Amino acid sequence: MAKSAVNAIVAQSGGPTAVINSSICGVIQEAAKSKKIGRVLAAHNGILGILKEDLFDTSAESQAVIEALKWTPSAAMGSCRYKLKSIQESKADFDRVLDVFKAHEIRYFFYAGGNDSMDTADKVNKLAAQRGYELTCIGIPKTIDNDLACTDHCPGYGSVAKFVATCAMEAGRDTDALYTHDTCTILEVMGRNAGWIAAATGLAARTPEDAPHLVYMPEHAFTWERFVNDVKEVHKRLERVFIVVGEGLKDANGKYVTADTGAFAKDSFGHVQLGGVADMLKAVIEKEVGIKARTQKLGTNQRAAMHFASLTDVNEAYMCGKMAVKMALSGVNGKMITLVREKGPKYKCTTGLADLKDVANGEKKVPRAYINERGNHITKACREYISPLIKGEAPIRIGRDGLPVYVRLAMKTIGKKLPNYL
Amino acid sequence: MAKSAVNAIVAQSGGPTAVINSSICGVIQEAAKSKKIGRVLAAHNGILGILKEDLFDTSAESQAVIEALKWTPSAAMGSCRYKLKSIQESKADFDRVLDVFKAHEIRYFFYAGGNDSMDTADKVNKLAAQRGYELTCIGIPKTIDNDLACTDHCPGYGSVAKFVATCAMEAGRDTDALYTHDTCTILEVMGRNAGWIAAATGLAARTPEDAPHLVYMPEHAFTWERFVNDVKEVHKRLERVFIVVGEGLKDANGKYVTADTGAFAKDSFGHVQLGGVADMLKAVIEKEVGIKARTQKLGTNQRAAMHFASLTDVNEAYMCGKMAVKMALSGVNGKMITLVREKGPKYKCTTGLADLKDVANGEKKVPRAYINERGNHITKACREYISPLIKGEAPIRIGRDGLPVYVRLAMKTIGKKLPNYL
Repeated sequence: MAKSAVNAIVAQSGGPTAVINSSICGVIQEAAKSKKIGRVLAAHNGILGILKEDLFDTSAESQAVIEALKWTPSAAMGSCRYKLKSIQESKADFDRVLDVFKAHEIRYFFYAGGNDSMDTADKVNKLAAQRGYELTCIGIPKTIDNDLACTDHCPGYGSVAKFVATCAMEAGRDTDALYTHDTCTILEVMGRNAGWIAAATGLAARTPEDAPHLVYMPEHAFTWERFVNDVKEVHKRLERVFIVVGEGLKDANGKYVTADTGAFAKDSFGHVQLGGVADMLKAVIEKEVGIKARTQKLGTNQRAAMHFASLTDVNEAYMCGKMAVKMALSGVNGKMITLVREKGPKYKCTTGLADLKDVANGEKKVPRAYINERGNHITKACREYISPLIKGEAPIRIGRDGLPVYVRLAMKTIGKKLPNYL
Repeated sequence: MAKSAVNAIVAQSGGPTAVINSSICGVIQEAAKSKKIGRVLAAHNGILGILKEDLFDTSAESQAVIEALKWTPSAAMGSCRYKLKSIQESKADFDRVLDVFKAHEIRYFFYAGGNDSMDTADKVNKLAAQRGYELTCIGIPKTIDNDLACTDHCPGYGSVAKFVATCAMEAGRDTDALYTHDTCTILEVMGRNAGWIAAATGLAARTPEDAPHLVYMPEHAFTWERFVNDVKEVHKRLERVFIVVGEGLKDANGKYVTADTGAFAKDSFGHVQLGGVADMLKAVIEKEVGIKARTQKLGTNQRAAMHFASLTDVNEAYMCGKMAVKMALSGVNGKMITLVREKGPKYKCTTGLADLKDVANGEKKVPRAYINERGNHITKACREYISPLIKGEAPIRIGRDGLPVYVRLAMKTIGKKLPNYL
């Protein structure tokens, strides 16, 4: 039977994760099965690719490569941080998106991203409706930050959580061994607004002697005085200190600690310290506690670590991709797929739906009940929330050279039908 | 049959590795089998533990824990960076080592470490001979830096190599995806004098588009002018740049680049940049090439990454530990176990012996033939040297909480027989 002439497009924007490609794999494989959808197009570099009409046909890729996307980290189709504002402010961009959709007969839009992406999808959807262009928009949650509203957790988070907790455990063992020389280690992790990634490292502390001994999250107002006391106390108890800090640490006024110009943050020459928050903490520890400290910053490695990704996370990301297509085909529109933790003693996760605009306007921070009273570690409730998300190891393929094998898409651009833009 | 009254001691010093405990496991298990050796004692925190008479009996540990040491990263017995100088300068320390050995009837000394440790073992051995104290000293190679003389490679290196190459590959995929925003990524790895760790990341570049695009090692004199040109060239070719830099980068005068106070190294206010070499490169790229750059620093995570360690490395480390005991029992003294790469098309590694003093006085840097002509990447010969060392994955145990299970030694201190020292 002939395939429909109606096409779909899949895109993602924002920071890559270990499992976004797993979701994309789910979308492509599920859409390929449907006769309602003709070609599954993809945008190169997210919304930028749509605006530039830089599109490719996923059916031109080998099925083995599409399948292997499930175990390939980062964003194989490319991503971007191009932000569309209100329909008024970004009118030309929104018009262009619809022009490109019309030119390529695109009637299904699957967009994986965070709340900015859901906002864009929502606006594109409403504009299409206003103009009488039939379009179905479904969002797929994607963020290592785990800060999306309306969903129990976000694909991408389980994998970053598993990796950073393992890193805290392993580097913690290093500090255990060499504390007579490198007494304090500060591990800086991502999370500009939410402390979920820092919180995950707390899982490595199975006993009070295990690293991390102190975990600082942006949700709890940071003060230098309390911090110095915390470090002194751990040092007195264990002769060593392992600290995890989320990059977006803030003070009581909501100001980033890295923007601090107070006395603590200046070096002995009175210069303000440069670098990230870990470097600032190091300077203060060396000056105020008088112990040697070292810093490390996992950077993008934490969000790309498919080599030790959570199998639970990979499977859920894949499920979200497939469900996005199933929902669209069943007539759902303007929703994001959510992850729903079923009640019961055993972890079980299914999917649900949330309005794109509710996700766009929401945010989920680490709740107070997940942070201990002193604001320097996680609670049991937090541990119970995160723990099921990091279980299982992704069965990646290792090449004969001893390194992971990750695929690349050919991304052969299809012919442009419109004048250039951007 | 009764065990001998003659005891052995095992210790390690310097930076931990993913597999030093594998070597220690080999020593303990092999020594336990021998009737010539009574108790296998261990020093807590390396040479410091010997000086402080802070010793424990490995037979008091459970055999399951000893076996699990094989898959536990870092230095489970503790380590230190306490340096003994010449016998004249550190006379009291050397005397104390022999006093502790005598007090505990220690006749076998197994010391895992780098060239400083081999130097210490050599001097202890010679002093014992001078004084007529019968002692057998065997060194076990241990360093992520892979810079020991007389051995084809060093236990610890294969695992750090596998991990940093994987990190370069994965973070490289992140830069591939988000180059329109984060155009350049700089990954700083360890290696203050030798560039072996930086070199290993070169293995991730299976094709010219793969990260890392530029690899800088301390062996090749660094100039800012060439560096800026390299970055511009890669950026023109690929629209993105992924750089790996060894922390000990030096200029033509052998001066650390981080000590540079030239024009390139100053920010727009004329301040000298603080932080590591990656931060300095970032500042120069942003100023001279005009693209956004981000830095990451794996720190001690690279040397503790048992979660993705090389099985080849674990097995060879274990073999070195066992061979140290076998050699000692067969009458060898004053030697370090070396790793010997057998000739032939298929990688095969056996052990050999080298004089402790030759290891102590030697050093093995990345040879010129392993660095490309432009000094910004590795050659095929380098790839062929490193590749066999990173094969296989260590079959670590993962707990029900989704994180690795690593053991801890009880390290119950045995009774002191001497007055306090240090």
